[in-house]
Amino acid sequence: MSATATLLFSCPDQKGLVAKLANFIYSNGGNIIQADQHTDFSAQLFITRIEWQLDGFNLPRDVIEPAFSAIAAPMNATWQIHFSEVIPRMAIWVSKQDHCLLDLLWRQKAGELNGSVSLILSNHLDLKPIADQFGIDYYHIPITKDTKAQQELQQLELLQHHKINLVVLAKYMQVLSADFVEKFPCVINIHHSFLPAFAGANPYQRAYDRGVKIIGATAHYATPDLDEGPIIEQDVIRVTHRDDTKDLIRKGKDLERMVLARAVRSHLQHRVLVYGNRTVVFT
Amino acid sequence: MSATATLLFSCPDQKGLVAKLANFIYSNGGNIIQADQHTDFSAQLFITRIEWQLDGFNLPRDVIEPAFSAIAAPMNATWQIHFSEVIPRMAIWVSKQDHCLLDLLWRQKAGELNGSVSLILSNHLDLKPIADQFGIDYYHIPITKDTKAQQELQQLELLQHHKINLVVLAKYMQVLSADFVEKFPCVINIHHSFLPAFAGANPYQRAYDRGVKIIGATAHYATPDLDEGPIIEQDVIRVTHRDDTKDLIRKGKDLERMVLARAVRSHLQHRVLVYGNRTVVFT
Amino acid sequence: MSATATLLFSCPDQKGLVAKLANFIYSNGGNIIQADQHTDFSAQLFITRIEWQLDGFNLPRDVIEPAFSAIAAPMNATWQIHFSEVIPRMAIWVSKQDHCLLDLLWRQKAGELNGSVSLILSNHLDLKPIADQFGIDYYHIPITKDTKAQQELQQLELLQHHKINLVVLAKYMQVLSADFVEKFPCVINIHHSFLPAFAGANPYQRAYDRGVKIIGATAHYATPDLDEGPIIEQDVIRVTHRDDTKDLIRKGKDLERMVLARAVRSHLQHRVLVYGNRTVVFT
Amino acid sequence: MSATATLLFSCPDQKGLVAKLANFIYSNGGNIIQADQHTDFSAQLFITRIEWQLDGFNLPRDVIEPAFSAIAAPMNATWQIHFSEVIPRMAIWVSKQDHCLLDLLWRQKAGELNGSVSLILSNHLDLKPIADQFGIDYYHIPITKDTKAQQELQQLELLQHHKINLVVLAKYMQVLSADFVEKFPCVINIHHSFLPAFAGANPYQRAYDRGVKIIGATAHYATPDLDEGPIIEQDVIRVTHRDDTKDLIRKGKDLERMVLARAVRSHLQHRVLVYGNRTVVFT
Repeated sequence: MSATATLLFSCPDQKGLVAKLANFIYSNGGNIIQADQHTDFSAQLFITRIEWQLDGFNLPRDVIEPAFSAIAAPMNATWQIHFSEVIPRMAIWVSKQDHCLLDLLWRQKAGELNGSVSLILSNHLDLKPIADQFGIDYYHIPITKDTKAQQELQQLELLQHHKINLVVLAKYMQVLSADFVEKFPCVINIHHSFLPAFAGANPYQRAYDRGVKIIGATAHYATPDLDEGPIIEQDVIRVTHRDDTKDLIRKGKDLERMVLARAVRSHLQHRVLVYGNRTVVFT
Repeated sequence: MSATATLLFSCPDQKGLVAKLANFIYSNGGNIIQADQHTDFSAQLFITRIEWQLDGFNLPRDVIEPAFSAIAAPMNATWQIHFSEVIPRMAIWVSKQDHCLLDLLWRQKAGELNGSVSLILSNHLDLKPIADQFGIDYYHIPITKDTKAQQELQQLELLQHHKINLVVLAKYMQVLSADFVEKFPCVINIHHSFLPAFAGANPYQRAYDRGVKIIGATAHYATPDLDEGPIIEQDVIRVTHRDDTKDLIRKGKDLERMVLARAVRSHLQHRVLVYGNRTVVFT
Repeated sequence: MSATATLLFSCPDQKGLVAKLANFIYSNGGNIIQADQHTDFSAQLFITRIEWQLDGFNLPRDVIEPAFSAIAAPMNATWQIHFSEVIPRMAIWVSKQDHCLLDLLWRQKAGELNGSVSLILSNHLDLKPIADQFGIDYYHIPITKDTKAQQELQQLELLQHHKINLVVLAKYMQVLSADFVEKFPCVINIHHSFLPAFAGANPYQRAYDRGVKIIGATAHYATPDLDEGPIIEQDVIRVTHRDDTKDLIRKGKDLERMVLARAVRSHLQHRVLVYGNRTVVFT
Repeated sequence: MSATATLLFSCPDQKGLVAKLANFIYSNGGNIIQADQHTDFSAQLFITRIEWQLDGFNLPRDVIEPAFSAIAAPMNATWQIHFSEVIPRMAIWVSKQDHCLLDLLWRQKAGELNGSVSLILSNHLDLKPIADQFGIDYYHIPITKDTKAQQELQQLELLQHHKINLVVLAKYMQVLSADFVEKFPCVINIHHSFLPAFAGANPYQRAYDRGVKIIGATAHYATPDLDEGPIIEQDVIRVTHRDDTKDLIRKGKDLERMVLARAVRSHLQHRVLVYGNRTVVFT
């Protein structure tokens, strides 16, 4: 497969947007291999994702963004262009539970994720053996109420130093400060409930207490408001009266790793566009 | 199929319960055709549903309950016995939307529900033609803030007069008073969200605003606390960024009628046992 | 909502297709409100669905197709253009079972389907009362081995006379001849199994005998090869050892009506494009 | 939790079965903690699973089976009794794909499976590093057409030597001979399709070619007839026109590991009873 460029683009809806974007690509010799569009009529917003082959594209790599910028400016657009040979760099943050971490590492190794795992970070030492086994650097940064602010600075430095594009909270079990999220806004979290049901702590116990017949998991971008960020993916599984809290946790672990993996996969393929508190996930 | 008796039974867990119940049936010549048991270890509660054939059962119909009572008393049990030839009588309460009503009437006619529809009750006249078409009495009882208490008295009289066993709120869109629910506690409601998410009003609009990727519906017993009653059945369906609120409502209608029908079917087959705020649904 | 035109288009993949199509619309003053594209790389086929507003579109309605034809010809394209104010006309064919028919009629009345029901046709008289109740013409055309060929001629005449665009086999339980399907190729059938499993007769009994844990239903376009046509939609539901054949049939009826309704809805919205034995269903 | 005994029992249906079984346990001082029953009326077969606590049970461990045998003989019953402290021993057979193996090993380590992994066997060397990492013996037994019969003898010896109770074919990709299955009948296989659809080779390619909208996976007991054994568990996932064969394989891998893990878990908890070509899976 030849190298491709992927445009994620949104702007106020108006006539001729598809034509203008397609013409930019065609007139420069590009071949569109996937294009998907959504118009949110209530927000009057046009949203698109276009992927085209760079083989035969006349613009040099470093000219593409400036050239496109000239076209996008009068449209009041928000946009990103990603090149397929630039592989995003992930940091996976964990606490003590291994299931999401292992699942992501397997999938990364199996080629399911368009990204590399540059580091694993944890407030505990429990999962260091897994990092060792996969040959990935493991940073142990314990967090207490008193040290949190200072530790977040260290975390930000790490992200910067390793040129991380995406932080995946794979059951990190710590709340990031509003300050942190502002400074590094590209964070995907997995919450072990079907949000907005059971936001906050102990969702499985509360799901059991409420007597629900289905449990869920939710992958979302982290925002300063805990469990309130834009949702990328959710899934559910049936439970019955035979399932106690321990069973809910066990069944939930399968949900968590599936849902998180799908969200991370979509994000790394540049298929997720956020606007307001919503996502468009182009499939 | 010969007539059967169905026992729904719960009591504090102790040794010998299955033996004692099975012996009562066997020693009187009954043949158990279905038995299911659940022990809630955290509540130390034994729960069972046993159905046996009355053909060849030595106890006359009117002696079964007193005879069983003598056995159940020392166990501190809560129990009901239902005979298959006593068909439960339903009242379906509606407002203006027809989908749940039509679905229940169609299933009742198709023999899927072990119950008869004795009356339809509504605070509006919109669905009277459906009642006419199916040949079912339609009671129009408008509700305003001022008349509610008085109208509920009239509703209770109707239920009593028609010997109603189960009220099904098939999108009734009115809150029953705590007083009503105390006097007539056997009410199944369909809520158009995946409870406890989006309890209260306008769940589809709120689901859209939150940007969820899955919507749901919940059938539960009505209790004085709105949307807090024991859950009988839930189901969900995927939505995407392409679905606006109108689409959520359309997709939700299919969920609502399926989930409500399954809950009503289970209840009418005496498969649902409530304890605390939980249900056991024997399948 | 203003009137729209919808283009369903496929042609051998080549550079500039999106630009050319979008330019045709933009240069004539049209505003694209939905566009979706798929490239089947193994078939080297470009496939798209574009919907644009006709309000402000400069070409008169009757010139649009000829004008587009001039553009499409050099691309070796296969295409259709549909105008939103032309409501497709359906004929629903049934046998004795009412669930799919009732479901389609409810949905049509509720505005879920972009089409009118012009007639109901059956080889039996059982469902005539439903047609009467909805005020739709009911044609009773019994079929025997000997009369089949002749009756199909009568059926084709009916379809022509009523200008039918789509025949929906809503549990018609008769096989259409290859000759019929050639003459009227736009037929959607619901098969009561998860094709290709249990193609042919008695799928529920055979599913029971095989001991499957999930059953399904499949909506597909009818082709001369029975149960082999392009699949539009499928869905499934869990069954357990407690479900006998009668339960499979009951659960299956819910699947059948849901799956058929979704397929018919997609088709009537011009979202389904067939190529080879496959469908693209734009959502 | 105290030690328990679990009875899996089936016999021709007759009056008093539940009473007799419950009395055996109660009269010897046992406390039933789970009991589930199913009657297959078409086969006139009574099927039950009963688990009781051994703490306080008067019969010594080695007398339980003979004592129960005396009771079961007149009922023409088929039965097994399992003691919770006897942990079943698994052999996992693989070829080159690692996803099912890794998933089972991870679940075993997480305590989700009531069994130990005594050995891994493969016709290839590819997955030996995983065995090493988990500290499990890896037996490399290559298979060719000519050596198959001889190699199966070696395999049977291995199973006997290691006292294996269950062979899990975790994508072993080789057909076992009828002779082997007769000699060692306790084998669970994962087939990468929704059986009986796409039995045999290359199910994902064939699913793609048929244009299905849902794919599945099936865990079943191996029998001499390939892909025809009693089904334990199945599950499915949606696919669209955007998914090519490679995507089907990727999505299918998630299904395969989930479905296989659930089947193995149920089997190891002695929840699966086979009769004819069907299973009862007590949940």
